[in-house]
Amino acid sequence: MSRHDILVVGSVALDSVRTPFGEAKDVLGGSASYFSFSASHFSGVRIVAVVGEDFPVEHRQRFEARGIDLSGLETTAGKTFRWRGEYDIELGHAHTLETQLNVFSTFHPKLAAEHRTCPFVFLANIDPELQLEVLSQMASPRLVVSDTMNYWIARKPDRVIEVLRRVDVALLNEEEARALSGEVQLVRAAGSLIEQGARAVIVKKGEHGALFRSRDELFVTPAVPLSGLSDPTGAGDSFAGGFLGWLARCGRTDGGALRQALACGAAMASLAIEAFSPERLVTASRSEISERVSMLHRMVHFQLETLFD
Amino acid sequence: MSRHDILVVGSVALDSVRTPFGEAKDVLGGSASYFSFSASHFSGVRIVAVVGEDFPVEHRQRFEARGIDLSGLETTAGKTFRWRGEYDIELGHAHTLETQLNVFSTFHPKLAAEHRTCPFVFLANIDPELQLEVLSQMASPRLVVSDTMNYWIARKPDRVIEVLRRVDVALLNEEEARALSGEVQLVRAAGSLIEQGARAVIVKKGEHGALFRSRDELFVTPAVPLSGLSDPTGAGDSFAGGFLGWLARCGRTDGGALRQALACGAAMASLAIEAFSPERLVTASRSEISERVSMLHRMVHFQLETLFD
Repeated sequence: MSRHDILVVGSVALDSVRTPFGEAKDVLGGSASYFSFSASHFSGVRIVAVVGEDFPVEHRQRFEARGIDLSGLETTAGKTFRWRGEYDIELGHAHTLETQLNVFSTFHPKLAAEHRTCPFVFLANIDPELQLEVLSQMASPRLVVSDTMNYWIARKPDRVIEVLRRVDVALLNEEEARALSGEVQLVRAAGSLIEQGARAVIVKKGEHGALFRSRDELFVTPAVPLSGLSDPTGAGDSFAGGFLGWLARCGRTDGGALRQALACGAAMASLAIEAFSPERLVTASRSEISERVSMLHRMVHFQLETLFD
Repeated sequence: MSRHDILVVGSVALDSVRTPFGEAKDVLGGSASYFSFSASHFSGVRIVAVVGEDFPVEHRQRFEARGIDLSGLETTAGKTFRWRGEYDIELGHAHTLETQLNVFSTFHPKLAAEHRTCPFVFLANIDPELQLEVLSQMASPRLVVSDTMNYWIARKPDRVIEVLRRVDVALLNEEEARALSGEVQLVRAAGSLIEQGARAVIVKKGEHGALFRSRDELFVTPAVPLSGLSDPTGAGDSFAGGFLGWLARCGRTDGGALRQALACGAAMASLAIEAFSPERLVTASRSEISERVSMLHRMVHFQLETLFD
């Protein structure tokens, strides 16, 4: 994979996570990490992020082993962003126990020429002001996807909406879509965000899959039925990696490509949650990924027959 | 429609319902009513139920206008079953304010010859003991679908499980599937019920659609995006009516038929909730129903492309 068509701007972090299925301490985490391991199965990825001097060289090597370009990974004096959280039995909801922004607190992404010209861009969950800064530096990307979180929706709703208007596809989970739109029902929530100027919205619904809505299109994918849930951390970023990854790989952004991209997103999210850290995204084989996308296709496909002659 | 291939045993009631969108007093309700109006678009239906002497003749005429056979609708001295309930803004959850079983409290379905030989059967939400009584009277039905509710799961879990083992497809909503299986995740909940001896399970997930799981099959349908929700009462029975209705109409019970049946169920449920009482199930046109099934097909269909060459 020599072409590096995808740019991600987000966090590279050290996570400590506890779930009902186990725990992990100071493992590789962060939105840009999950995204790039996921997308790397489909296309070349460049990361723009920042780490501290304590960032282990082994982690760096794991990215490089997957062909991920780290020329935009700044190393700054200080410690790497750390997150500590746990999930309750119902899962889906992380309780943040501690956030140490560290070097991330003063991060202002500066894009080099090879970043500015990437056709596919993922603006991971960072301050919407930073997302806008990145956007203003891009040459003329083909497709930009953004993520966000309740933290920013509560604090900077106008900026979050501004990002939605400037990107091609905005990713939100159920709670975020409801909080930002004021609508309970998710198809309506997505519709309300379109009314507010978003071009297209993907609502991630956990075990219920995901829905894509734009002015002209409305389609859904189920989730891959769980084989072995270990840690939901990074599911959304891995989803984004599969979604953008497939678009970059097939080189199209038409309705058909977007529909399969949604299934690729769901497939990658299902892999991510099977282990702590992005472990399964590293070890996943092409045939495993293909089999999951095929499974999603089998779960929804039916031959439409005329109901009434 | 001269053939009456479908039998439903359940309640015919008078409902008083309040939702955030309006209210209705003493309108036609009951599981057998919603089911039969829904299924009547696809095939002939016979009702076995009981009403009191106060049951309005106009309601009887509405059934007959849709070709629904009422020869099994007993009229007994006393009052018709009455239910009074309301829905909160989140919907999905009905609060029962009052239940007057009336003539329904001593109901023991007795099937005539023309009922015993119906190939398709819906055992609506009644006491599982009564469901088993009905089953023991059937000749050799091709496909039996059962419904239940939390009330019976809490009081007679063993009988509910026994019904599950004796029917072909058991319908449950999310809460019922979780309560009966002890599993939170719905694909797992369905799997646990299969382990306990159910042949196939449909879990109705409200705005998230429905999933079908048997030993060999797992597939889903989304819900029809809401156009105008008025009253969720009867959504599940209307779903069952579309599901069994299509199977009776096409005369098949293979995987392909079951998949389209699931979409027909979702289409009919979406019509039912657009008005109080089964009003929309009466007025729905064939083209409206077909259009909703096609919409569900468009929402999930994609051309599977090879991910990696």
